[in-house]
Amino acid sequence: MTAGPAAVSASGQEDTRTRLLATALRLFTEHGVEGTSLQMIADALGVTKAAVYYHFKTKDEITGAVAEPGLRELDLVVAEASRLRRRGAQVDHLLTGFVDIVVRHRTLVALFSRDPGVTRALTDSWATRENFSVRMMEIFTGPEGDTNRAIAAHAAITGIALTGGAPQFADLDDDTLRAHLLDVGRRLLGRPRRVS
Amino acid sequence: MTAGPAAVSASGQEDTRTRLLATALRLFTEHGVEGTSLQMIADALGVTKAAVYYHFKTKDEITGAVAEPGLRELDLVVAEASRLRRRGAQVDHLLTGFVDIVVRHRTLVALFSRDPGVTRALTDSWATRENFSVRMMEIFTGPEGDTNRAIAAHAAITGIALTGGAPQFADLDDDTLRAHLLDVGRRLLGRPRRVS
Repeated sequence: MTAGPAAVSASGQEDTRTRLLATALRLFTEHGVEGTSLQMIADALGVTKAAVYYHFKTKDEITGAVAEPGLRELDLVVAEASRLRRRGAQVDHLLTGFVDIVVRHRTLVALFSRDPGVTRALTDSWATRENFSVRMMEIFTGPEGDTNRAIAAHAAITGIALTGGAPQFADLDDDTLRAHLLDVGRRLLGRPRRVS
Repeated sequence: MTAGPAAVSASGQEDTRTRLLATALRLFTEHGVEGTSLQMIADALGVTKAAVYYHFKTKDEITGAVAEPGLRELDLVVAEASRLRRRGAQVDHLLTGFVDIVVRHRTLVALFSRDPGVTRALTDSWATRENFSVRMMEIFTGPEGDTNRAIAAHAAITGIALTGGAPQFADLDDDTLRAHLLDVGRRLLGRPRRVS
């Protein structure tokens, strides 16, 4: 099967979409979501505003699409963890996966934690998709629904996300940040701490 | 010294100011900061909009004033902790005081963590006042500036604040929430855990 003109065009559109999202993330980080217009995104890409409209009708749609890969990865890690048999293994898999996503999507996580515009744009998509933050809490807290565990789990999730995205740790390399955030999670979730 | 008309009037104004801030916090919680107008605050208080203007010129000023008591208490606890001699005692005093403030000002902390309008209104006052979040980090991290400790301290501060203000724990009584949040802090800051 050879790629005809339609396939070439579709892949060209896909490429523009990818560049558009990378550019949007960069501009959001520099100017905030509120301070970034569709026109600014078009200018930075060197395309017309109509070309941006071809992919996204609103800035909220762009914000949602920027966050999408991180959210999808998180969804996947939660599903993988749920399928494991032992509770300890579930907690370890989810913790490792979550920390890894926070570290790799640091710029995005920082934007999430600091920029009011992101929270507003994402409220709907976070609420409507199968609520995986509830499923994360269930795995970390365990079936007993113990309050002390639930509070430790909530503090682990929020503490790791906000610390991983914090500007004062932006200079740390991925491996160092990952090791320290894992340590935070293990302390709070009562998992054995490893020297790494 | 007897209280003349001026003193009575000043105390009446003080009373209006206090009621105004309590009403604003309630409306902010119900409708969000963005969704609350000065007119709505005036209506809820049964006063004219001019009476609100007498105390505050903008909604940002009201938001700042609503947050002020919590911030001032935190400032005081940080100052008290700094004056203690042993590092362990400094950490314990600051942790206990911080958790106590988060628990007592739960509604406010929840608003802080969820409402974009609060973050925006407070950015200036948080940045311009002597930066006590930096001083909190210094006490919790210690003079060595160790990265693992700094990350644990940051996770403790953000985890405690966001968990204390989280809607899913709103039904817990103060003593229970306080005990569990202290436990989060002690695990992360390497302080002895007590049975309480």
